[in-house]
Amino acid sequence: MLLERDLIQSSGFRNVREGDRVTGFQLRVRMPSYRGMAASLIDGIAVRVGDLVDVGPEVPLWTLGGRTYTLGELWDGDGVRWPLDEAAVVTVPFEGGLPDGVHEVSIELRLRMSYIPEEHQPSTYRVTRHITLSPDADGGPFKYGVSLYSYMTDFGTVLDLETALAHVADVGATGVEILGEGHIAGYPEPTTEWIDRWFALLDRYGLEPTNYGSWIDTRLHSSGPNARRLSAAEGAAMLQRDLRLAKQLGFRFVRPKIGVVSSDLVPDPIWTESVERSLDLAAELDVVICPEIHSPTPIRHEVVDDYIQLIERTGTKHFGLLLDTGIFQDRPIPLRPGELPGQRPAFLDGIGVDPADIVDIAKYVVFIQAKFHDIDDHLEDQQIPWVPVLQALKDSGYAGYLSSEYEGERTPWRSIEQVRRQHSLIRRIAAGLD
Amino acid sequence: MLLERDLIQSSGFRNVREGDRVTGFQLRVRMPSYRGMAASLIDGIAVRVGDLVDVGPEVPLWTLGGRTYTLGELWDGDGVRWPLDEAAVVTVPFEGGLPDGVHEVSIELRLRMSYIPEEHQPSTYRVTRHITLSPDADGGPFKYGVSLYSYMTDFGTVLDLETALAHVADVGATGVEILGEGHIAGYPEPTTEWIDRWFALLDRYGLEPTNYGSWIDTRLHSSGPNARRLSAAEGAAMLQRDLRLAKQLGFRFVRPKIGVVSSDLVPDPIWTESVERSLDLAAELDVVICPEIHSPTPIRHEVVDDYIQLIERTGTKHFGLLLDTGIFQDRPIPLRPGELPGQRPAFLDGIGVDPADIVDIAKYVVFIQAKFHDIDDHLEDQQIPWVPVLQALKDSGYAGYLSSEYEGERTPWRSIEQVRRQHSLIRRIAAGLD
Repeated sequence: MLLERDLIQSSGFRNVREGDRVTGFQLRVRMPSYRGMAASLIDGIAVRVGDLVDVGPEVPLWTLGGRTYTLGELWDGDGVRWPLDEAAVVTVPFEGGLPDGVHEVSIELRLRMSYIPEEHQPSTYRVTRHITLSPDADGGPFKYGVSLYSYMTDFGTVLDLETALAHVADVGATGVEILGEGHIAGYPEPTTEWIDRWFALLDRYGLEPTNYGSWIDTRLHSSGPNARRLSAAEGAAMLQRDLRLAKQLGFRFVRPKIGVVSSDLVPDPIWTESVERSLDLAAELDVVICPEIHSPTPIRHEVVDDYIQLIERTGTKHFGLLLDTGIFQDRPIPLRPGELPGQRPAFLDGIGVDPADIVDIAKYVVFIQAKFHDIDDHLEDQQIPWVPVLQALKDSGYAGYLSSEYEGERTPWRSIEQVRRQHSLIRRIAAGLD
Repeated sequence: MLLERDLIQSSGFRNVREGDRVTGFQLRVRMPSYRGMAASLIDGIAVRVGDLVDVGPEVPLWTLGGRTYTLGELWDGDGVRWPLDEAAVVTVPFEGGLPDGVHEVSIELRLRMSYIPEEHQPSTYRVTRHITLSPDADGGPFKYGVSLYSYMTDFGTVLDLETALAHVADVGATGVEILGEGHIAGYPEPTTEWIDRWFALLDRYGLEPTNYGSWIDTRLHSSGPNARRLSAAEGAAMLQRDLRLAKQLGFRFVRPKIGVVSSDLVPDPIWTESVERSLDLAAELDVVICPEIHSPTPIRHEVVDDYIQLIERTGTKHFGLLLDTGIFQDRPIPLRPGELPGQRPAFLDGIGVDPADIVDIAKYVVFIQAKFHDIDDHLEDQQIPWVPVLQALKDSGYAGYLSSEYEGERTPWRSIEQVRRQHSLIRRIAAGLD
């Protein structure tokens, strides 16, 4: 398990219940010293949350090694330690708890260092950070998941698999989506040890596998003197390899990302045969193949019509549509430093599909990737209009997963907090829909 | 194992030998996509190193999964993959290899994405970074180690234990120093599983345990209504706990950091009895207790005299001095943003102990912590005068470890490259000493 760099961790910020009463809230704090230490060296932590809470250093309770102590108990005790690799859980009594959303949290943490002259003691650490409470809102008709795609670039550099799954569970999600060649060590042939650990982690964090991302790499052999096109048989073999592996890991949906042959992302014609050859296997495994409708392709498009035609033609129950909410983006992604307008693909300004179009294809939609880019400190999404999108999904009868796909700025650790914001935002909206 | 955030990894940058010829150099590159992929989708990597090397994308060789391929072999092959969690090793033929030191390395990496329109292909990633070659210099009379203290704040957030040890080994170090309560999971009672893994990792990376940092926390119970002073018996028990654990993990030196009672860091008087009570155990375990001479305490100081007196009085071979090279700092650590001169302890400007003083205490010195703060792109240390320090150590007959203690800016991942710079710098100086 790895900790976030900030002393105040965003994961773990939640209200605390005793029976049916909310009695306070908790946050997790990383040890600021270069060492772990005996907990009797803690001289307390003052906590402020916006205008709502302001408590002195002696008030919060400390949970270390799974047991909870008052500051006085830590002072008198022996053997309790705050390890370097384990965040302390700080509990602040606050009747009724905090409201859902982003909060400005400040701490003033005091630690005694025996090796520093007394006139400079205690060592005091003051930090403020905006973090999002694990949402309490009901979440309406939908189920909530997170794609590990959200943690792109963080995964493997600041997050390992267990830490990523812990973050997913901490927002109250029940589903996890992965990319096969990305999150499975040793893909396409993970060891038995890896597979056992995968199921053990799902169990520990209370998560179920949802969708598994795969690729039909049509340009696999398109460079060099021996370049050639991928055949439909090869495309089918790729898809079937992933269907089997996905099933083995407990997934119910497989999204093949299919190579394209045109500027507007028309898939390579081999896709039809590759999929049709795989439908019997999908049925046998009870896994649904679901290519995505992804910006810049709107809902009303020949590509989508072709997908639907395949369903109608074959009568299959094991092929469906995955909707990526990026198609509803109605405000631009900000230009990157040095980037000029017109230098980038126009779809980054948003193709603004009307959520009302969902109803036309609703009966084929099996999974939603809840794509987003930036949710600010006021819990406002800067690109995706969630109210009409979620209303249209509810109206269409969709009751499956909303699986977070954060696709914004890749500052280390940012993805963790952004996913928390999205879950807080969409659960709240979903709970209030007509 | 975790990767550095930059695509160009600093660890793994080294010359390549075939027999006694140096035939080129290698660097490690992180997969820039959000997924791993078949290696036939690689369209090459151009590499430039300062004014020395400039090769086109088809030239470098690729090592993936432990086997090495030309680009043409990757195009024609099948089943070779570049996983998301594994850096590719890129080998550039360059007769004679690169000189030791920091190099400006640029890459232009090309990958084919089947799902992006062909007119935007290949996807091209251009990055430049200053990285340091694993040193080839002999290193003179000294042994080279790294304290995991160097990776403070990175450890547990961007580095796990194995990744940290891999970085240590990659600079050609043979020794590793740890902090007991910091790098041992479950301190003070690590599981058998953890201990087995510790030895397995030492073996895998060819490292020996050197010094183990511990604390005598004299203020353990100095807060609250029941505050009291630590007794010498309690201090001895703390020290002995760490002596035993250090021995169990293979360490030969234990540095107890002792609580202080004055502004100029005079240790709590209990230190003498705590140590004396522990000398028999240290002898039995054959571990040397070695408190540090650390800025702002110079070599000529009553604290050092007291340590030497204990050695002379008891005749012990299991107590010695650890010298922290921070005492030789002769230029200031830069002010932090917003910090004003005079607002911080004066010793941060450097206490500038004359390295010639080493000779007075040389026979008691058993270990060196090679403290440093900043080595620039020209391999110049901004605070520590290594030439006179290393000359004085050599002249005094010291032939033990120089154990890196990076103590500079805590930007994530910076510590890894700074340690590489220090080893390159001090090995080169040491090899050229009179």
